[in-house]
Amino acid sequence: MAIFRPARPNDPLDHVETPALLLDLDALEANLAQMALSVEGTGIALRPHAKTHKCAAIGRRQIAAGAVGLCVQKVGEAEALMHAGITDIRVTNQVVDPRKIARLCALAELGRISVCADSLEQLPLLDAAARDARIRLPVLVEIDVGSGRCGTRPGVPAAELATAIAGSRHLAFEGIQAYHGRAQHLRHASERQEAVDGAVEACRRTLDALAVRGIDCPVVTGAGTGTYPLEAASGVYTEIQPGSYCVMDLDYGADLDAEGCRYDEGGSPFRQAMHVLTTVISRPLPDLMVTDVGHKGVAVDRGLPAVAGRPDLICTGASDEHLKFTCTDPASAPRIGERLALVPGHCDPTVDRHAHFVCIRNGVVRALWPIEAKGAFH
Amino acid sequence: MAIFRPARPNDPLDHVETPALLLDLDALEANLAQMALSVEGTGIALRPHAKTHKCAAIGRRQIAAGAVGLCVQKVGEAEALMHAGITDIRVTNQVVDPRKIARLCALAELGRISVCADSLEQLPLLDAAARDARIRLPVLVEIDVGSGRCGTRPGVPAAELATAIAGSRHLAFEGIQAYHGRAQHLRHASERQEAVDGAVEACRRTLDALAVRGIDCPVVTGAGTGTYPLEAASGVYTEIQPGSYCVMDLDYGADLDAEGCRYDEGGSPFRQAMHVLTTVISRPLPDLMVTDVGHKGVAVDRGLPAVAGRPDLICTGASDEHLKFTCTDPASAPRIGERLALVPGHCDPTVDRHAHFVCIRNGVVRALWPIEAKGAFH
Repeated sequence: MAIFRPARPNDPLDHVETPALLLDLDALEANLAQMALSVEGTGIALRPHAKTHKCAAIGRRQIAAGAVGLCVQKVGEAEALMHAGITDIRVTNQVVDPRKIARLCALAELGRISVCADSLEQLPLLDAAARDARIRLPVLVEIDVGSGRCGTRPGVPAAELATAIAGSRHLAFEGIQAYHGRAQHLRHASERQEAVDGAVEACRRTLDALAVRGIDCPVVTGAGTGTYPLEAASGVYTEIQPGSYCVMDLDYGADLDAEGCRYDEGGSPFRQAMHVLTTVISRPLPDLMVTDVGHKGVAVDRGLPAVAGRPDLICTGASDEHLKFTCTDPASAPRIGERLALVPGHCDPTVDRHAHFVCIRNGVVRALWPIEAKGAFH
Repeated sequence: MAIFRPARPNDPLDHVETPALLLDLDALEANLAQMALSVEGTGIALRPHAKTHKCAAIGRRQIAAGAVGLCVQKVGEAEALMHAGITDIRVTNQVVDPRKIARLCALAELGRISVCADSLEQLPLLDAAARDARIRLPVLVEIDVGSGRCGTRPGVPAAELATAIAGSRHLAFEGIQAYHGRAQHLRHASERQEAVDGAVEACRRTLDALAVRGIDCPVVTGAGTGTYPLEAASGVYTEIQPGSYCVMDLDYGADLDAEGCRYDEGGSPFRQAMHVLTTVISRPLPDLMVTDVGHKGVAVDRGLPAVAGRPDLICTGASDEHLKFTCTDPASAPRIGERLALVPGHCDPTVDRHAHFVCIRNGVVRALWPIEAKGAFH
């Protein structure tokens, strides 16, 4: 596949070809600084989740701002980012295929790699691959703290799994993976607090069961952009792994803070740093507008996108290569050829559809950052 | 980006790494033969839509089976497929950016390229680019036949646009683009018939208005996998452009034929030729199973996938890198590490997430076909 470059450095923003994934460097830098500040001096480690950005240039900036390393979901993402120079990556997911485990262990040549487990069945496979790679592989026990997806039960079952890891010759028990994904998108602060209270309680029960067994637990990790201050203040979590904060999206923007203020109206310290630039290609009716990107270029799994600064344009449908909008004020509706900046419903899969971030400062393209882990779901 | 290869030729199916996009060659070939047969001797041209497969190897087989060329939605797709040897491509979409129009016209060096228009504003841009490329660019008028997306109004407005095309020095009026996308997924045959009757009527009015102006209309094109026999039999359409038939999906499988038989239970002559192979990575509860692909690898815009041959496994949710399933019969539920073949809800965007079709015959990998136009939405 030829990789299309929608712009070149020093191009004015007006010259960027669409659809393009724009990254506002000022907003990105402010977001990175803000997150670094929020853990400074607390002793909480920041390990941002790279499933959001999949981009070594952003990962390097997160680490330069104080992050201890990155998280990813897939071995392929770890490969892409370690080959691009990131040297400490945690795979916050189960890996069960022996070939994938061998690939995982091979990454220890490039840096520090750790992984999760939630079943006894995985351990002999992990142990054998670590032995073959002549490493001791750090493994975390993933516990289910309320998302109902992966993860063993907290407390005794988790401690039993940790015991088995600690007893495996080529594995090292690193800690507990306790991410409450569902909690991130509970709209009200009180709901998120309640969900995280449950996660904290599940971690405590697990720590107690580990203590009974005399097993040290160096790391308790989890949290996302919607809840990280709660985990950081819990006294139990040692590490947070927020992802979306670096670029943000419409779904996070709709979260409400404790005072009921929307995140995208000041409730969150993070700014929308990422937009999908699109061109109006058809205006068949006075109140109908069609643009040149569809859900092949902007993810709609958490809702349709909005047009930045244009509440008069309402997205009403997405097909593969088109978005449809109702123009509520036809007199000021965009013309054919006009370009609009979309705020995606969900940042992570939107990034995954693009080959580059087109980095913008003061209306000028400063760089194209490759999204090295695009499509790296293997 | 390094392109991961999930298999190599001659690997047994059991060795394919997941997630992988499997293509059953026997089923593909049967589908291509079936579609070719359906237009044989009718005088209707077959121009399959490559937005589904984005793959030159499949396109070449469609042309070998009698197709006159391919359709695409984007200039980037046309570039990828023409550079891979396809020599006749119709862009069934509006192109309004002068740089994209220049790229489009440059493709005339590689073969025959045609494009759509639905507004007068586009014509000077198309004409100028065709002049600069020293070609006469074939242009179709897209009319809205009921999808409410792009397309000028049928009848006189369309004929006026055709008149302007015919009067442009470097453009040639090629015909009418009249695709009823929404009709493809109306479940009942009678609903689809009614929708296509409307489309046919819209084409007739346009042809009448063209005749009044003395403008010849060589091509009336449209139709998809859900309706193509209707357009082919209409006496008005000269060309059909079905896409999904080559691989099929769950959404088309749920369509009903005139006797009320589901497409995937014999109502359609086309077989499910494409699956996403996935591995069970977690079994936290007796009735809960999690696999190693999420909506970054299998599109869910038209519904969650199903497991082929396993009605006891019900997909209940998709996140970026995971699918969750309820195992209705825990006694026979898959183990960790077991591999399952998913039927995607929607084939087109699922293909777009993968770099290769892993081609299977008799349980053996025969080839990896690159998906040249993956992500080519520019």
